[in-house]
Amino acid sequence: MLFFGKKTLDKKSGREKEEIKKPSNKKVSTKTLSGFMELLPAEQIVFNKMFDTIREAYELFGFIPLDTPILERAEVLLAKAGGETEKQIYQFKKGDTDLAMRFDLTVPLARFVAENWRELAFPFKRYAMGKVYRGERAQAGRFREFYQCDIDVIGDEKLDIRFDAEIPSIIYTIFNKLGFDKFTIQINNRKLFNSLFSGLGVSEKSAKIMQSIDRLEKIGAEKVEEELSELKLTKDVIEQILNFINLKGSNSKILQGLKDLSIENDEFKKGIEELEMVVNLIQQFGVPESNFRIDLTIARGLDYYTGTVYETRLDEYPEIGSVCSGGRYDNLASQYTDKKLPGVGISIGLTRLFDQLKKKEVIKTGSATLTQVLIIPMTENPELSIELASVLRENGIATEIYFTQDKMKKRLGYADKLGIPYTVIIGEDEIIKDVYTLKDMITGEQKELKREELLEKMRKGF
Amino acid sequence: MLFFGKKTLDKKSGREKEEIKKPSNKKVSTKTLSGFMELLPAEQIVFNKMFDTIREAYELFGFIPLDTPILERAEVLLAKAGGETEKQIYQFKKGDTDLAMRFDLTVPLARFVAENWRELAFPFKRYAMGKVYRGERAQAGRFREFYQCDIDVIGDEKLDIRFDAEIPSIIYTIFNKLGFDKFTIQINNRKLFNSLFSGLGVSEKSAKIMQSIDRLEKIGAEKVEEELSELKLTKDVIEQILNFINLKGSNSKILQGLKDLSIENDEFKKGIEELEMVVNLIQQFGVPESNFRIDLTIARGLDYYTGTVYETRLDEYPEIGSVCSGGRYDNLASQYTDKKLPGVGISIGLTRLFDQLKKKEVIKTGSATLTQVLIIPMTENPELSIELASVLRENGIATEIYFTQDKMKKRLGYADKLGIPYTVIIGEDEIIKDVYTLKDMITGEQKELKREELLEKMRKGF
Repeated sequence: MLFFGKKTLDKKSGREKEEIKKPSNKKVSTKTLSGFMELLPAEQIVFNKMFDTIREAYELFGFIPLDTPILERAEVLLAKAGGETEKQIYQFKKGDTDLAMRFDLTVPLARFVAENWRELAFPFKRYAMGKVYRGERAQAGRFREFYQCDIDVIGDEKLDIRFDAEIPSIIYTIFNKLGFDKFTIQINNRKLFNSLFSGLGVSEKSAKIMQSIDRLEKIGAEKVEEELSELKLTKDVIEQILNFINLKGSNSKILQGLKDLSIENDEFKKGIEELEMVVNLIQQFGVPESNFRIDLTIARGLDYYTGTVYETRLDEYPEIGSVCSGGRYDNLASQYTDKKLPGVGISIGLTRLFDQLKKKEVIKTGSATLTQVLIIPMTENPELSIELASVLRENGIATEIYFTQDKMKKRLGYADKLGIPYTVIIGEDEIIKDVYTLKDMITGEQKELKREELLEKMRKGF
Repeated sequence: MLFFGKKTLDKKSGREKEEIKKPSNKKVSTKTLSGFMELLPAEQIVFNKMFDTIREAYELFGFIPLDTPILERAEVLLAKAGGETEKQIYQFKKGDTDLAMRFDLTVPLARFVAENWRELAFPFKRYAMGKVYRGERAQAGRFREFYQCDIDVIGDEKLDIRFDAEIPSIIYTIFNKLGFDKFTIQINNRKLFNSLFSGLGVSEKSAKIMQSIDRLEKIGAEKVEEELSELKLTKDVIEQILNFINLKGSNSKILQGLKDLSIENDEFKKGIEELEMVVNLIQQFGVPESNFRIDLTIARGLDYYTGTVYETRLDEYPEIGSVCSGGRYDNLASQYTDKKLPGVGISIGLTRLFDQLKKKEVIKTGSATLTQVLIIPMTENPELSIELASVLRENGIATEIYFTQDKMKKRLGYADKLGIPYTVIIGEDEIIKDVYTLKDMITGEQKELKREELLEKMRKGF
């Protein structure tokens, strides 16, 4: 807590003079800004569990934690940004310095690797989980402050394609541990699009073509064809694009279909080869066939990814869109260094994911606390209560003592309201008779236990 | 990753038009702002361990997580601030909204409790651990972005004094788990100062008197006396103040000394009573006598705390100052609500603590990764490597596969540089002979194991 009195410099003593500001009666509104998520305890606990699950999985796969500042020099964060991106960024001046709040975790990673690459071992595998900021126009489901949970594998000059195949096994592990079984990791390779368009002589229009294709699911094939016509593409070109994106079915069928297109272009062939390798390795990683598939319409942005790209959809909630996306890029940090740093990574937008799952009532909140045992001392001297609490805590059991002198009903009401599973009442009678009551707040079951039995039970951690 | 191309609205189609910005050759500086800590992996890992230790202790004592926005309406954060505080705050406008970055975790807590008190169970015990921002003039050891790790117990209208006694046991648990045994929790009660000054008729000068007393350790008793004279206090008043702050020795001796002052003032007596109660209970909580003591010079700010106050010092590094401070206050959120919300809390400034311990070389960094096993596939098909990695990960062992086709020396060098404790090499020979080599990278010891032995060993988690 900073000191809140107004400080002014006392000219005589050179020290600060205090003028205590009187509290005014007018109350300040306590609403948070729109687009900023703030959770009540029961929800925060679930959110943290999801956060910890993701973190544990990232660590299990050998990723190293990195925590970069939220505030950076604007020049650093804007080195590559422009247009809409720049408008979204929270930017301001403090003194003479132009500052900006980070809008993703990739730009700070690029800056970090460029700055510290001599210190790092490559491939550099880092995870980062923190808040990022985008001052978007407020709309339902959009956040201005939100958590991103990222991993990236960065190579020095080169990065083996096999790392691309490991990523889906990480996605699989995470969504599995989050309690989902019906989800699909969609995989594509940007080399296919890129070379297809250059082969057809429509590279310049590739951005717009991809925009149409990206919306295939939303607007349907007919509308896509219509939009492509508007771009003044020839019938033949449109046909070839549609032949490509219409390749559907099992992964092996799509791969065969791609080969059957007989497109004589090295990059296209390379794209097929990479896609095939990734898909085959994914199976070795133990990801079930039902949880991943090639989807040739997945593009992921326009100028950034250069190889494998990923999106992840919850099969039962397709309207949420992709919950985990990413891909392979050729060069992470060209704005900061001449070092060539290829990488592959993914990002989970946890705030949005949590919010969407909450709205769909997929998220079940439980207790509004992590406390497992509430000890209720009924005597003036809480010595035994404190002793019990200490034993429990030494055994890793989160424990509270209800010190406030309230009526029993209110004390038990506290445990009820928070959802604390066990209470122990410790009064004069209990101490004299050496019998204590352990109450299971869920079943209502009560057990009378002697002091040593109670301690023993608690030492065992139930 | 946001899209980086400049977007402009294409008037004809109504859709966005892409102009890909060419990367310039001029590189942007990759330095972070001064006052913003960014750690390399080996340090980040230690930092995170400290963070997790604090979090676990907070949860063990029944505190509930709360995560408030970093950015709030300026009006909310500045409701009580003024003067120097206000100057330090990062404030800016986005559109029509005046925004500010939080400068502590207490103000957002006050706002949260005022907004949600109907939803909460009281006493509301919350922990919050996150970054806060103060645009102070840059100086050694001062941070502009830093982690605070706070707990507070908030009562609705009342809060039992026994909660004050539980706080030092939390501090003790944390610093113990952080590996310290020589530290002292210093305890005082602000009622003593407050009533002493009012009894002596010098309340108006209390702020300045406390400033002098606060610097007792720094400037010495003689200089304090001199400064008090400058405040035009009578000899008698100065003597009584010095009698008070000179009470030293064991806790019981100080308590006796306070009683012997025979100050006939209800608040002073209440202060002694509270202090005595807290000190006695602390012992019941199992905090050794060597780790806490009454220190009547501890004041902690000027207008905020109203009862028990705490500071914590590492005995071997007194120059670091207090590493965990806090206290009891009468009313958390008067600027937001008419509800009376007394509370008691502490804060650990983790960024500064880490930085100071690092400079004193107390912090020993180990591995630059959390990975325990590096699997090195020497065959084109990494199937067995992937299988082993999966088994290890299922057993909770952080594992990496070195997919890059480098020379063996470089691969082992990667494990060496990061400090990965074990490597397993899997080549053609190994697969044919069904014998694999598990190398302990620290002792250099190598064990030849059959596939099943290796898997068995790994399933057991070493």
